[in-house]
Amino acid sequence: MVGIIMGSQSDLPIMEQAADFLKSLEIPYELTVISAHRTPERMFDYAKTAKERGLKVIIAGAGGAAHLPGMVASCTTLPVIGVPILSSNSIDGWDSVLSILQMPSGIPVATVALNGAANAGILAAKIIGTCDSEVSEKLQKYQDSLKDKVLGTVEAIKKQHPNQFDK
Amino acid sequence: MVGIIMGSQSDLPIMEQAADFLKSLEIPYELTVISAHRTPERMFDYAKTAKERGLKVIIAGAGGAAHLPGMVASCTTLPVIGVPILSSNSIDGWDSVLSILQMPSGIPVATVALNGAANAGILAAKIIGTCDSEVSEKLQKYQDSLKDKVLGTVEAIKKQHPNQFDK
Amino acid sequence: MVGIIMGSQSDLPIMEQAADFLKSLEIPYELTVISAHRTPERMFDYAKTAKERGLKVIIAGAGGAAHLPGMVASCTTLPVIGVPILSSNSIDGWDSVLSILQMPSGIPVATVALNGAANAGILAAKIIGTCDSEVSEKLQKYQDSLKDKVLGTVEAIKKQHPNQFDK
Amino acid sequence: MVGIIMGSQSDLPIMEQAADFLKSLEIPYELTVISAHRTPERMFDYAKTAKERGLKVIIAGAGGAAHLPGMVASCTTLPVIGVPILSSNSIDGWDSVLSILQMPSGIPVATVALNGAANAGILAAKIIGTCDSEVSEKLQKYQDSLKDKVLGTVEAIKKQHPNQFDK
Amino acid sequence: MVGIIMGSQSDLPIMEQAADFLKSLEIPYELTVISAHRTPERMFDYAKTAKERGLKVIIAGAGGAAHLPGMVASCTTLPVIGVPILSSNSIDGWDSVLSILQMPSGIPVATVALNGAANAGILAAKIIGTCDSEVSEKLQKYQDSLKDKVLGTVEAIKKQHPNQFDK
Amino acid sequence: MVGIIMGSQSDLPIMEQAADFLKSLEIPYELTVISAHRTPERMFDYAKTAKERGLKVIIAGAGGAAHLPGMVASCTTLPVIGVPILSSNSIDGWDSVLSILQMPSGIPVATVALNGAANAGILAAKIIGTCDSEVSEKLQKYQDSLKDKVLGTVEAIKKQHPNQFDK
Amino acid sequence: MVGIIMGSQSDLPIMEQAADFLKSLEIPYELTVISAHRTPERMFDYAKTAKERGLKVIIAGAGGAAHLPGMVASCTTLPVIGVPILSSNSIDGWDSVLSILQMPSGIPVATVALNGAANAGILAAKIIGTCDSEVSEKLQKYQDSLKDKVLGTVEAIKKQHPNQFDK
Amino acid sequence: MVGIIMGSQSDLPIMEQAADFLKSLEIPYELTVISAHRTPERMFDYAKTAKERGLKVIIAGAGGAAHLPGMVASCTTLPVIGVPILSSNSIDGWDSVLSILQMPSGIPVATVALNGAANAGILAAKIIGTCDSEVSEKLQKYQDSLKDKVLGTVEAIKKQHPNQFDK
Repeated sequence: MVGIIMGSQSDLPIMEQAADFLKSLEIPYELTVISAHRTPERMFDYAKTAKERGLKVIIAGAGGAAHLPGMVASCTTLPVIGVPILSSNSIDGWDSVLSILQMPSGIPVATVALNGAANAGILAAKIIGTCDSEVSEKLQKYQDSLKDKVLGTVEAIKKQHPNQFDK
Repeated sequence: MVGIIMGSQSDLPIMEQAADFLKSLEIPYELTVISAHRTPERMFDYAKTAKERGLKVIIAGAGGAAHLPGMVASCTTLPVIGVPILSSNSIDGWDSVLSILQMPSGIPVATVALNGAANAGILAAKIIGTCDSEVSEKLQKYQDSLKDKVLGTVEAIKKQHPNQFDK
Repeated sequence: MVGIIMGSQSDLPIMEQAADFLKSLEIPYELTVISAHRTPERMFDYAKTAKERGLKVIIAGAGGAAHLPGMVASCTTLPVIGVPILSSNSIDGWDSVLSILQMPSGIPVATVALNGAANAGILAAKIIGTCDSEVSEKLQKYQDSLKDKVLGTVEAIKKQHPNQFDK
Repeated sequence: MVGIIMGSQSDLPIMEQAADFLKSLEIPYELTVISAHRTPERMFDYAKTAKERGLKVIIAGAGGAAHLPGMVASCTTLPVIGVPILSSNSIDGWDSVLSILQMPSGIPVATVALNGAANAGILAAKIIGTCDSEVSEKLQKYQDSLKDKVLGTVEAIKKQHPNQFDK
Repeated sequence: MVGIIMGSQSDLPIMEQAADFLKSLEIPYELTVISAHRTPERMFDYAKTAKERGLKVIIAGAGGAAHLPGMVASCTTLPVIGVPILSSNSIDGWDSVLSILQMPSGIPVATVALNGAANAGILAAKIIGTCDSEVSEKLQKYQDSLKDKVLGTVEAIKKQHPNQFDK
Repeated sequence: MVGIIMGSQSDLPIMEQAADFLKSLEIPYELTVISAHRTPERMFDYAKTAKERGLKVIIAGAGGAAHLPGMVASCTTLPVIGVPILSSNSIDGWDSVLSILQMPSGIPVATVALNGAANAGILAAKIIGTCDSEVSEKLQKYQDSLKDKVLGTVEAIKKQHPNQFDK
Repeated sequence: MVGIIMGSQSDLPIMEQAADFLKSLEIPYELTVISAHRTPERMFDYAKTAKERGLKVIIAGAGGAAHLPGMVASCTTLPVIGVPILSSNSIDGWDSVLSILQMPSGIPVATVALNGAANAGILAAKIIGTCDSEVSEKLQKYQDSLKDKVLGTVEAIKKQHPNQFDK
Repeated sequence: MVGIIMGSQSDLPIMEQAADFLKSLEIPYELTVISAHRTPERMFDYAKTAKERGLKVIIAGAGGAAHLPGMVASCTTLPVIGVPILSSNSIDGWDSVLSILQMPSGIPVATVALNGAANAGILAAKIIGTCDSEVSEKLQKYQDSLKDKVLGTVEAIKKQHPNQFDK
C-alpha cells in the first residue's frame, strides 16, 4: 500500500524509520532504492506504475539537490511524501529541504522535517486512515501512547524536581 | 470533506487558492479563520471535532511563528497540510517555513511551499483520491492540462525563437 | 513562583540551568515536562491555571518547531520566557529560534539566546525583582560577581601577557 | 514605569507602537532616543539611573548591529526588552535579531519579533502585571478582545465561504 | 549547437540573455520551454535526443525547486549549464540555487549565478570554443570589449573625481 | 592619500559617500573604477603602485562575488578597506559580504557593513589619524557632532513624548 | 588537457577526486597549488598561458573567500570550473559557494557542489567530450555504471525488505 | 602600540594569534580580557584612555552578540579591528559576524573573518605601517614568505602529480 523509496543506500538507516512505523501498524509497504539522477528510467517506471500496482501513497527520501520526491510526484496522481535527508557535503540540510519543499504550483510534495522519515510513515498512515477506520483507530492509539510516554517522563522527573501542578 | 483554516484574515487571498482548486474538482470544503494564539480554544474544538464532522483532510495556513498547522495536527488523526505564508515582518518567510516543517517525531505536518496554497488544495485532492476514483481521474485530467498549457507556451515561443526539437 | 517547562526530557540538561539560577537566589520554582504536540490538554491546563496556582513567570524551552512557549503565552496573562533549544535534526537551531521569537502581534514571548536557559532564569528573577527588592538586591550582587570573575581572569592572564592598562 | 528608548529617530514609527499599547492600558512611560554608539555616556547614565528614577522595565529598540538593548541590560538589574528593527542596509533583519537575541550568559535581553514593538509594550505590561492586579485584569480584557476581533473576522468571511463548524 | 530550455514562460526574459549572447557570436541555438514537473516525458525526450540532434551544450534555467537542469544532466553526456532564476514565491532565490548546484556525485551541473543567463551563454561559448578556434577568438574580443567598457567608465568619472592613477 | 576604487559605475552612488566624508575632513583622495574581473591588469597595476604613488589606505567596494578588495590586498602592504555592496541579482548581499570578509589567513581586508561606504571613509580617516594629530582632532569633532545630532533629535521628540530623564 | 589548481595544500584530498576521475578516463591533466592571494602573479601567469600550453579546461578549487576560480576566469577564454571547498573557519561553506558562484556578468565560472571535485572532473570530461567522441563514449559507459551500482544496491536491500516492483 | 582585548578567557586561544603576529614583527602590544556586558565601566575606561596611553590600534574579539568591538569604537577615534569568534551556543558564527560587521553609519569597525585573529594582527601592522616604514618593510617580507610557503607546497606536490606549468 505504501511505497518507500530513497535516492541512495546511505539513506536507508533514516528511511527504515518510516518502514518501522508502518510495520507497527500492520500497513503493507515495499522499500527500495531509486536514484532520480542515476536511474531516471527506473524512477519513471516506478512512478507511472505505482497506482496500478496498488500503491496508495509514496514516501520518497533524498539528500542534497533532492529531485526524487518532486519528479515522482510529476508522474503520478498519488500523494507523495518527501523526506529531506542530511547527507555528507550537504549545506546543513538546506539544499535537501528547499529542493523538496519549494515545488512549483501544480505538483505538490508533502514535505516533512529534515530526517523526518518516522513522521513520513505516520503521515502515510494518516492518509490511508482517511478511508480505513481500522488504521485510523490505530493512529488514535499511537497518539495516546505518545501522551503516555510524556506522562511517564513527568513521573521520572518529579522525584528530582518539585512540581505543584502534578500533585 | 476538506477544512481550510488560516491564522488571520490577511492570509485569505493566498488561502483562497486552495479553495478554488477544490471547487474546480467539486470537492466540498469549509473555510474559516482560526488563530492558534488568539483563539486557542476555538482551534482545539475545531481540531477535535474535525473527524466526526466528516472532514478527511485539514489545510492550515499561517505566517510568522506559525503554530496553527502543528497544533491542529496534535489534536486529530486526520492528515494536516501546512501552508507557510509570507506575512509582513516575517524574516523572508523562513520563520513560517521552519515552524511548520520542523515538527517533532510523532506529529507530522505535510508542508508545501511558501504561499503554496494552490498546491495544498491539490495535495488534499490527491489524499481524497486515494479512495475516491472519481477524484483520482479528475486529478489525472488536471495533470494533463498542466502539460497542455506548457505545450501551448511552446507554440507561442516558437514563432520568435528557432527550435529544431519541436519541428 | 516560577514555572519551568520543556517539551521533552532531552531538554532537561539545558533547562536545569534555569532552575539552578533560581535556586541560587532562593526563588521557588516548579519544573516539569509538557509537550505542546503530545500532551496539548496538559499544556492548556498548565497555562490556564498557572496564575491561580501562584506562578508569576513561566519559562518554556523547546527545540525544532517549538510551539510550547507561544501556545502557553496564548493562554495566560503571565509573562512567558522562551528558550530555543538546539535539538537533534534541528537545522542549526534556526527552527527553534524563529518559531519562538517571531510571535504575531498580541502574544509576545520573551525570547533568550539558543540554549540560553541560564539567562531565562536570570530574566525570571529580574521580572520578580521588579516588585521584590530582596530579589533585586541579590541580582545586583550576582551582576557584581560576574564582574569579579572577569577581573579574576584578568589577573590570571596578566602573568603571561603584558598589559599596561591594569598596572 | 516603563522606559522606551531607541537607537535612532527613524525607529520612532515602530517604537511608538509600544507606547500606544502602554497608553491604552494607562501605564505611564517615557520615550526618548539613546544611541549606544553615538551617545554612549547618555546610555550609561540612563541605564544606571533607571531603577532609582522609578522605572520597572526598559524597552530598547535598534536596527543593524543593535547593541543598545544588551548594553543597557549590562548596567541595570531591571528587565530589558529588546526590539529588533528592520533598518535600511540591514541584511534582512538578521543582524538586528542576532545581535539582540544572542546575549552571553549572565545578561539576558527579552527579545521580541522583528519590528515587534507592540509586543514589547504588551510584554512590559505583563511584567508589571505580575505584581499589579489591575494591569493584569486589563491584560485579560485585551487578550479577550483579540479573540473577539478574530470572531468578527469569522463572521465577515462566512458570508462568502461555506463553514459548517461555525453554524 | 546550444539548446536553451527553461521551466516556464516567465523565465523567458532572463533566459533570452543567453540567446542574445550566442546570437552576437553567431553560435546557432534553439530555445524552448520544458517543464520537468509538468512535461516530464518531453524533458526526457529532449535530453536523450540532444546529442544525436547535434547539440553540444544545454543551458537549462528554472526557479524554485529547480529540477530541470539536474534531471536533463542525468539523461545525457552533454555538459549542462544550470541557471537559477529568482521566481515569485522563491525564498530569496536560495531554493533555486541549491537545487541546481548541490547535485550528487556522478551528475554535475555547471551552475552560474542567480539570474545569470548571460553568463550561461558565455560559458556555452567557452565550451564550444575549446574546439572551435573561431569562437575562441570571438570570446577574446568580447573579453577585451568588457575591459574597454570599464575604461570608458573611468574616463566619464574622471571629470568629476580627481584620479592620479589614470593621469 | 586615500584611493577609492569600485568594481562598477553602478557602485558610484554608494562609494561617493566615502569620498564625501574624506572631503569634509580635507583628506585628499582619488576615486576610480577598477574591475577585478574585467580589468585584472589595471587592478594589479593599481595595487602594486599604490604605495609608491603616495596612498596610505585603499577603499575598495564591490557587489556579488566581490573579489576586488581581497585581490588588491594581496598585492600591497597598505591596509585595504572592503565595502560590500548590494547589487542587482545579489542574494540579499550575502555574496558580497562573505566574499570580502572571509579572507584567508595572511591577507586581511578591513570589512565594513553592507553599503557602508561612509564608514569606510571614516575608518580610512581613523587610520590616517593614527599618525596625523590634525586628522585625529577632526575625527573627535566629527564624533562629537554625531552626539549633538542625537541630542537634537531628543529635543524634537520630547515635545510629543513625555520623558523624565531629560528634564 | 585539464588543469587542476587549488588555493591550498589542504584542498588536495578533495581536489584529487577530480584527478582520479580524469585518470580513470585517460584524460591527461596537470595538478598544482596556486593561491590567488599569496601568489597572485603565479595565478595570472598560469591563467594567461593556459590556452597556449594546450589546456582545454581549468578546474579551480578554493575555500573561504574563494577568489581563485573567478580571477582565473577573468584572464582566459577557457571554461573554468569552480569547486567550493568547506575549509576550517568557513561559515558552513556559504562563503566559498557564494564567492565562486555569484560572478558578475561577462565572466562565468561553472560552479559545482560544495566539495564536488569529482563532479568537476566529470564536467571537464563532458566538455572535452563535446569534440572528442572517444571521451564521450567513455562518459556514457561511466553513466551506465552509475546505474549498475544502484541496481546492485537494489538487489542487496531486497533480501531484507519486501519489494513488489523489482519482482 | 596595539591593544588586544577579548570578551572572555575562552577567546584567548584564538586571540593569541593576533599577539603572535605582532610579536613576530616586534610591534609592542598589550592583551587583556574586557567584557562589554560584565565589565562595562572597564570597557569604557579602556576605550577612553586608549589613545592617551599610546595605543594606535585596538583589536577586539568577541563571540555571540558581540558588542565589544562596536562599543569600544564608539568611545575612541582610534581604528578598532573586530574579530568575530565562533563560541559555544553560537548560531554557526552568524551572530558574532553580524553584530560586529553591521555597525551604523558614523562608527566603523574593521571586521575580519570568523576566528580571523591572525589577520587582525596583520591588519594592525598594516595600519601602523602607514607611517612606520620599518613595519611596512617587515610586512613586505611577511607577504613574500607567504608566497615562498606556497611554492614549497608546489614542489612537494609535484612529486606525486604531473605539472607542466612548473617545469
